[in-house]
Amino acid sequence: MNILKNIQLVNKMIFGAGSFHQLGDIVDDKRADSFMVFLVDDYFEGKELAERTPARDQDRILFVNVDEEPKTSVVDDLRDAILQITGKVPDGVISIGGGSVMDYAKALSVMLNNPGPSSQYQGLNLAQQPSVYHVGVPTLSGTGAEVSTTAVLTGPEKKLGIKGDFTPFHQIVLDPELILNVPRNQWFYTGMDSYIHNIESLTGNYSNALSDALAHQSLELCRQVFMYGSPDDMPSNEKLMVASLMGGLSLSYSEVGICHAFSYGLSYVLGTHHGVANCIAFNQLEAYYPEGVAEFKAMVNKQDIEIPQNITAGISEAQMEKMIDTTLALEHMWLHALGEEWRQTMTRDKARELYQQM
Amino acid sequence: MNILKNIQLVNKMIFGAGSFHQLGDIVDDKRADSFMVFLVDDYFEGKELAERTPARDQDRILFVNVDEEPKTSVVDDLRDAILQITGKVPDGVISIGGGSVMDYAKALSVMLNNPGPSSQYQGLNLAQQPSVYHVGVPTLSGTGAEVSTTAVLTGPEKKLGIKGDFTPFHQIVLDPELILNVPRNQWFYTGMDSYIHNIESLTGNYSNALSDALAHQSLELCRQVFMYGSPDDMPSNEKLMVASLMGGLSLSYSEVGICHAFSYGLSYVLGTHHGVANCIAFNQLEAYYPEGVAEFKAMVNKQDIEIPQNITAGISEAQMEKMIDTTLALEHMWLHALGEEWRQTMTRDKARELYQQM
Repeated sequence: MNILKNIQLVNKMIFGAGSFHQLGDIVDDKRADSFMVFLVDDYFEGKELAERTPARDQDRILFVNVDEEPKTSVVDDLRDAILQITGKVPDGVISIGGGSVMDYAKALSVMLNNPGPSSQYQGLNLAQQPSVYHVGVPTLSGTGAEVSTTAVLTGPEKKLGIKGDFTPFHQIVLDPELILNVPRNQWFYTGMDSYIHNIESLTGNYSNALSDALAHQSLELCRQVFMYGSPDDMPSNEKLMVASLMGGLSLSYSEVGICHAFSYGLSYVLGTHHGVANCIAFNQLEAYYPEGVAEFKAMVNKQDIEIPQNITAGISEAQMEKMIDTTLALEHMWLHALGEEWRQTMTRDKARELYQQM
Repeated sequence: MNILKNIQLVNKMIFGAGSFHQLGDIVDDKRADSFMVFLVDDYFEGKELAERTPARDQDRILFVNVDEEPKTSVVDDLRDAILQITGKVPDGVISIGGGSVMDYAKALSVMLNNPGPSSQYQGLNLAQQPSVYHVGVPTLSGTGAEVSTTAVLTGPEKKLGIKGDFTPFHQIVLDPELILNVPRNQWFYTGMDSYIHNIESLTGNYSNALSDALAHQSLELCRQVFMYGSPDDMPSNEKLMVASLMGGLSLSYSEVGICHAFSYGLSYVLGTHHGVANCIAFNQLEAYYPEGVAEFKAMVNKQDIEIPQNITAGISEAQMEKMIDTTLALEHMWLHALGEEWRQTMTRDKARELYQQM
């Protein structure tokens, strides 16, 4: 009999326009004798949102750059700097940003209570000590990072998450006002992560009545957003925030698939950001997800988005080999998408052929 | 600005046929130096499921009768008996049963760590101490008790829940095999609780993008179950289990409405069970929920269910007055359903007229 996944959920969740105003009270309830760390996307440095952060005098606001995908080395540096400068473990970590900033916060909250380099914890339930209290406040929607049990990190040897019961947020604050007016390309690339989560969750061996129901509703919301909405209208933002949540939960109970397996390779070797890497990969996967890719292309047209092409054109043979290695190492995704005999379908040659189209 | 609800969610959730087999390992992880209490619907006494309960020698299996709605006095008796006989607070409470048994477990887990009668805690966040670890294993689906932040109880003065951050389960085990072959009437009455949660959640002032998305998907699942399914097929059971979960979450972020307000009066004064009381009330609420009641009646016909009628025919004037008092005291439901001016619409005379039709 298969072991079913017993998923650690977010402890508390607040949803609605203006909920950011309640963040101060929420955080104050968790203050002990230390301080809070606010981890904020450096995009907001000097902007209004950074000034609205409910930090007190003793707290630290750290702006993080996420031009590159989250790295284990940055997590270690953040952890070491906080502990060395203050000499104390903080009472909590509050992240304000997109999926990368939330992944940093999730990883940091684990590493503040666990010794050694974070690359040692890339895998399932490897941390021994509980994480410190951590809060996610998304300013971009689609990744599902706000509910997932994984903090995805690129390490010296692999792109793999710190996954487990200590990773999910203790609290998320979902305020659709915070994701208003995101630049259209970024809005689309990030939101499409959710669309692709749903297609992949539904299409594979680990799907079930719970993951299906979540994915169906999330897909419906994605359709309303990307066929009829825009980054500037509130109903679309509210729906995208819920779609991201449901898509993230859906894949927790099922699994991602072929697009994410290829996307991880692009990100690991070429540094391509997760959202756009997904779009680049999904664009070439008609053979595996015919209906999903057709609808995706309709959304691309509707929103007038440019999906980069031929990004693998000039890469070296060593890079191509590394991408193929990265992709084929993600066995759980392949088992879900193609079954036990997946290696017969997804050969190295086939993976190379697909990468060459991307 | 309105204060948005910051909802305490279930900590861990496992879903799927056969997940009951994992209950032993889950519970063993939480054992300290005390024992576990298994609270089991006495319907299962001597039946196979009771024998499959992963109780160890030191544990206590308590069979509870839920012919009547859960009562504060029974919670107090259970708590006092456990503490007096064993002299220890248990490591956890594991409930196996429908909404009433789960409500007992939720209330008991709070009361094992908080002094005095449970009726003192009917309300929002009145308990000072955290509850003991508690697990919900539903054997009936529809109530949403598995995810709600409320343990609904009938006390000496009122039917009102022990509601708050300490009430929700630390763990739920959703095994659709456990709800297979429930008698058709009970299956329908309990499942319809979820259908009504969704209609009420969607139709009112507190609805929002999150509660709407959950309710829409839950309604779609209810349609598949009650228009095309039966209590004996697994796909219907899986869907009903998910519908119950989503409907329960939906109302947590929105609110129930007119049907539940009337249903509470029927249960409080006449002792009518919650599921059938809902159906009796909803059957007479076309004026308020025209589409929902029409679809409900189609489901009643399709499943060949008898909804009791004229149950208020022989009641005393004092009973009628008490029912009207009970209903009109549920202000949060009325504010949601009818708005600030609800008293002008739902007068005592109007409530009486509706009760007389039930």
